[in-house]
Amino acid sequence: MGLIVQKYGGTSVADPDRMRAVADNVAYTRQHGHDVVVVVSAMGKATDNLISLAGQVSETQPGREMDMLLTTGERVSAALLTMALADRGIEAVSFTGSQVGIITDTTHGKAKILEVKGDRVRDALRAGKVAVVAGFQGVSTDREITTMGRGASDLTATALAKTLDADACEIYTDVTGVFTADPRIVPQARRLPKVHFDEMLEMAGAGSKVLALRSVEFARNHHVALHVRSAFTWEPGTWITEEEPSMEDPIISGVVTDTSEAKVTVVGVPDKPGISATLFEPLAAANVNVDMIVQNTSKDGTTDISFTMPVADMHIAEDIVARVAAEIGASGVNHDAGIAKVSLVGAGMKSAPGIAARMFRTLADRGVNIEMISTSTIRISVVVAASDLEHAARSLHTEFGLDSGEAYSAPLPERK
Amino acid sequence: MGLIVQKYGGTSVADPDRMRAVADNVAYTRQHGHDVVVVVSAMGKATDNLISLAGQVSETQPGREMDMLLTTGERVSAALLTMALADRGIEAVSFTGSQVGIITDTTHGKAKILEVKGDRVRDALRAGKVAVVAGFQGVSTDREITTMGRGASDLTATALAKTLDADACEIYTDVTGVFTADPRIVPQARRLPKVHFDEMLEMAGAGSKVLALRSVEFARNHHVALHVRSAFTWEPGTWITEEEPSMEDPIISGVVTDTSEAKVTVVGVPDKPGISATLFEPLAAANVNVDMIVQNTSKDGTTDISFTMPVADMHIAEDIVARVAAEIGASGVNHDAGIAKVSLVGAGMKSAPGIAARMFRTLADRGVNIEMISTSTIRISVVVAASDLEHAARSLHTEFGLDSGEAYSAPLPERK
Repeated sequence: MGLIVQKYGGTSVADPDRMRAVADNVAYTRQHGHDVVVVVSAMGKATDNLISLAGQVSETQPGREMDMLLTTGERVSAALLTMALADRGIEAVSFTGSQVGIITDTTHGKAKILEVKGDRVRDALRAGKVAVVAGFQGVSTDREITTMGRGASDLTATALAKTLDADACEIYTDVTGVFTADPRIVPQARRLPKVHFDEMLEMAGAGSKVLALRSVEFARNHHVALHVRSAFTWEPGTWITEEEPSMEDPIISGVVTDTSEAKVTVVGVPDKPGISATLFEPLAAANVNVDMIVQNTSKDGTTDISFTMPVADMHIAEDIVARVAAEIGASGVNHDAGIAKVSLVGAGMKSAPGIAARMFRTLADRGVNIEMISTSTIRISVVVAASDLEHAARSLHTEFGLDSGEAYSAPLPERK
Repeated sequence: MGLIVQKYGGTSVADPDRMRAVADNVAYTRQHGHDVVVVVSAMGKATDNLISLAGQVSETQPGREMDMLLTTGERVSAALLTMALADRGIEAVSFTGSQVGIITDTTHGKAKILEVKGDRVRDALRAGKVAVVAGFQGVSTDREITTMGRGASDLTATALAKTLDADACEIYTDVTGVFTADPRIVPQARRLPKVHFDEMLEMAGAGSKVLALRSVEFARNHHVALHVRSAFTWEPGTWITEEEPSMEDPIISGVVTDTSEAKVTVVGVPDKPGISATLFEPLAAANVNVDMIVQNTSKDGTTDISFTMPVADMHIAEDIVARVAAEIGASGVNHDAGIAKVSLVGAGMKSAPGIAARMFRTLADRGVNIEMISTSTIRISVVVAASDLEHAARSLHTEFGLDSGEAYSAPLPERK
């Protein structure tokens, strides 16, 4: 007997059949004596459809109105799932973000949670009911409806789990957990039974789409254990915990690949102080998320500056970079969308020297050219040509012993 | 310069093109110096689609959850229209029913308005903004999201017009106003420039679909002048006012037809006191809206009781009537969906005797058999065979002088 928060993503509730399957799982959990709080995303492509509708109606899309519009998607899911639970004899009640007291700042579209009250959820649980909460949304200190960014239903679930002191927070998605690599790229990839928060953070930062970065950060900072699993198979997935890695744990937990970035190179930049700031400040102001940056050694008083950024933001960045390049007297700008990022992530890396050298040697032996490098204490990322992606990821997966056996041997936390 | 409340129905905002046309009209009104509050319905078939989705997910549809679900439709419209206004340089802000303080009782699906605060609308107007309000919805005294029944966006507009002391309440719909008859049935039907509240109430009660009965009642009780007009032609429509009819006004304002009802006859009912109550109380308890009732004179100690009710509720009523008929020892129950109701409505009827006789004579001369009759001080309704509907409506339209000329000659109220 315990309190379990379950979050179901858009594909898990994409149509009436899947919505009923989710209701079956919630009912199953409830009937086994657990208190259950459910957080739901909008059905399938509902959010994308609303965004497209807004584009058809208006070029101007104020953040406040987009939030009024988009929050309806999760509310529809919450109401429908609550009905499906009633159909199964499970007493349930739906809530908006505002109704459960998810208080945010006033930044529409990317609001930050300031406080989660949760009073009405507690009342519902006390009355023996399942609480079904519309994810992704809150109410601002100005009493306006806000959203917390794409993928923020994970954050809603994590924050509620913290506020309610839940025994577990289950994130149901369309994959069966966190893998040692993307199985579409590395066929030998295996599911990890357990991943440390720090590793999951690095994986999310390196491009893993399984969990939104912000919810992992929140979960780590507030000690909420997450369980990522599939709403289609219901088998145990991957636990994200703060358990310290043990001696038997492997050094590397996974190979993360990311093809969502492009490389931009500003050529022939005069090499003087403050040039980098002149280039990157306006990009930051335009919310363009610059990832890796490399500056070549100076020759003839000029240098080349390369950086990676999301391909999706290229239309915003292009004008800014062209303008700044002209201002600072650079000789030109090159774009390259044909790149991929390959990262090794592992908490054991901290205490195991020589991982980077072994990684670069493995890639060099396979004829893979490394264009850019960045590292953290538990991650090494390299940018390679997109055409080298599979080759690089598979050889690293084999080299670091991920092809066979369980990556962790420690026992799983029990579902209380 | 004045304050105008405009309400746009579902067909007026059914797609992005029409949504933009509505924005053009609101912008036009605003640019002519008026303060504007807009109330919107859900887009086209959005509400029906949500109801159908609920049916696919669950047989159980608790009222609270249906309200959580259905209110999203109007919110989508409000957000989109606000964006389209921003596109036109018009500062606007969308509000939910809860945000504008439409406080209702706790009856989900058919909530009654207890109070309209309107503070945030006043603030928006004071800041020079157009307020766009999601219709049909409010918040209950229990802090739950409620809806006020199909067609209740008219009521939202009327109630806001009252609270804000608006100069006019314009109801935009897919017809150009109130007609002397349904033009699909009586081709000579003409638009009425003006109709008295009492007449409009009787017309709505007699089956006219132009305005929801509750909003006409509210408008009459609170002295809110309504202007019914088309969002496709923008031409002046019909004013619903409390102006007393003058001597020059015709006795009859319109012929109203209704084919949405069926007739039920309970045959061979023992003729004793309390039998009617036994039959009609359980129907009322099941929210079946019984319209006309006729009880035949008794013969051999038994009688036949006939009544009309919405065809749409027949699936609910059938079981109840069959059960009660057996209980009271009636010999049988007949259903007849092949009926139509034809009503004459006119405020001048009060002071003009002999209208009923002339109506019955006209129908008799055309060979139309009258099955049931009901009257008010300004309305006479008869039930005839559905096959006689056109013939009956057209002959009455001609007989009472509605085929030519303006039904009213008094000047229109000016738009302040």
